[in-house]
Amino acid sequence: MKVRELGEFNLIARISEITGQEKGRVVLGIGDDASLLSSRPGFHIVTTTDMLIEGIHFLRERIPFRDLGYKSLAVNVSDLAAMGAVPLQAFVSIGLPGDTDVREVEAFYEGIMEAAGNLLQVSGGDTVSSPAGWAVSITVIGEVRKDRELRRDAARAGESLYLCGHVGDSAAGLSVILGRVTSLDAKIADFLVEAHNRPVPQIEVGMALAERGISRCAIDISDGLLQDLGHVCRASGVGAAVHLDRLPLTQEMRAAAAAHGVDPHQWPLTGGEDYSLLFTVAPGRERELDRMIGELGAEAAHIGEITGGEEITLFLEGERRPLPGTGGYDHFRKG
Amino acid sequence: MKVRELGEFNLIARISEITGQEKGRVVLGIGDDASLLSSRPGFHIVTTTDMLIEGIHFLRERIPFRDLGYKSLAVNVSDLAAMGAVPLQAFVSIGLPGDTDVREVEAFYEGIMEAAGNLLQVSGGDTVSSPAGWAVSITVIGEVRKDRELRRDAARAGESLYLCGHVGDSAAGLSVILGRVTSLDAKIADFLVEAHNRPVPQIEVGMALAERGISRCAIDISDGLLQDLGHVCRASGVGAAVHLDRLPLTQEMRAAAAAHGVDPHQWPLTGGEDYSLLFTVAPGRERELDRMIGELGAEAAHIGEITGGEEITLFLEGERRPLPGTGGYDHFRKG
Repeated sequence: MKVRELGEFNLIARISEITGQEKGRVVLGIGDDASLLSSRPGFHIVTTTDMLIEGIHFLRERIPFRDLGYKSLAVNVSDLAAMGAVPLQAFVSIGLPGDTDVREVEAFYEGIMEAAGNLLQVSGGDTVSSPAGWAVSITVIGEVRKDRELRRDAARAGESLYLCGHVGDSAAGLSVILGRVTSLDAKIADFLVEAHNRPVPQIEVGMALAERGISRCAIDISDGLLQDLGHVCRASGVGAAVHLDRLPLTQEMRAAAAAHGVDPHQWPLTGGEDYSLLFTVAPGRERELDRMIGELGAEAAHIGEITGGEEITLFLEGERRPLPGTGGYDHFRKG
Repeated sequence: MKVRELGEFNLIARISEITGQEKGRVVLGIGDDASLLSSRPGFHIVTTTDMLIEGIHFLRERIPFRDLGYKSLAVNVSDLAAMGAVPLQAFVSIGLPGDTDVREVEAFYEGIMEAAGNLLQVSGGDTVSSPAGWAVSITVIGEVRKDRELRRDAARAGESLYLCGHVGDSAAGLSVILGRVTSLDAKIADFLVEAHNRPVPQIEVGMALAERGISRCAIDISDGLLQDLGHVCRASGVGAAVHLDRLPLTQEMRAAAAAHGVDPHQWPLTGGEDYSLLFTVAPGRERELDRMIGELGAEAAHIGEITGGEEITLFLEGERRPLPGTGGYDHFRKG
């Protein structure tokens, strides 16, 4: 059945069935002019939002709708992780052509709910007609204890630089999806495509870093390690030294880089959409971090240091290396 | 200059100049992974969101960009008014073609800031490429005192039904814009177009109703009086009687209806996009309401009563009238 045949209000009813009853601190959800969330003294409300346009951020034929839903929400949860926030509510707006199959919309929301897990409640949104293609806009609300938020302007010279989650897999996966990397083992190709379509936000690590006060500064890798580290350096007025041989790279990404004939550090440094967590730790707190990471069953790589100056320098086996030319994605320049 | 020439990060910098510095309870605004808002004990966080697609919700040639910005935010503020909430933060995401003139984007944000006034802070959003046309998604956050929110499921039989703001002007204005109503005096035409392009959200009235506990139930007129009243009746399990001769209609709307040859109640009942505030008042509190409305320098019309049953009945000079055929807008059916 097409969305046009079902009608707006029946479509919203189907979506509400998938997103389920409001619970926890959500006082009022889908169905009124706005939602209500009970707030807690001593905490800040944290809000982030993202827009995705068909043909720019995704190709409808190249990503399953369930994955599209999952990823749309996961990238916003990753922004909360980068603030050290606990996720609470999500608002999902979609614009879609009237001839969209209702099953596709349901699959999209099933993916949304998979990414939401037990973490957050889908509490509203908008459902409108968009004849030219899908448009998705998601807003996520969380909270963080006052003065414990992870800010990108809080890096200080002398701090250690850590990365939680892999880098480069997503860009390698995109190259596989676009048919630029072929002749790869199917298992490797699937792994990389999954990394691109179903990124795992580092929400538990972000929350724990903030709650324990182990870090004051974090950012998630959406534009590429170099560009996102650049955001931190500019905002904080610091520089950084990164040791390429300490980057957490997968065998799968290395295999794809070899097959594609690119330097294995190209995708990790400039690729983006990894949604790994880059953060700094003050001198003397590294062991506390190791213990925390162990407790969470996570992994974190100590990839470098925050320095004076405002320059990012790269090292490979102790030797300084030049920065790669391109520094991430500009929506309009390349769009 | 085109957006493509300026580039994403320079465009964001221009937007940040227009939206200004964060102030008040906004702890952290544009420039980090997410924004921070200090929350207050005893209040709920209220969130609402809307998406607008070029060609569906607006025609780029038919609305000035400044008005588009103004209206995009105003309709969300109207949703907060309908909850009785105090506005705090807005998040504005836009998708636009790379060949968009930067002046158009600036005009859009100037309109946003005009609607924001001193009420709320633009604290973030997203700026992406959308080759097929503009897509706008706005999320607004406010707060309301616990158990004072205005809900659409809180109407009770015996309560009085009030309307603050005119109805029908916006639909009449749309007919003027679309060239369906011609041969109108230019002043009248301008008045109606302005009502459509620059609706005035009833935010002070909504806030005062909630703060003083005079009303428990409100909705804003976005889909048309009949359809929005229907939402209240279904959610609350009540009916309503509306006296058409008490509807607050302007001379300008009446003149346009006469010129177009439609019943003067057609646009008020089924037109939509008025963003007037429909609310109920418990028996015995009408004088308190009158005092409040007087203090605010506003006007409110007592248009009917909440009844038992689940039916909406219309009266004109005491005589029952049939419901008009069409009940508002379905995005996909008509889209």
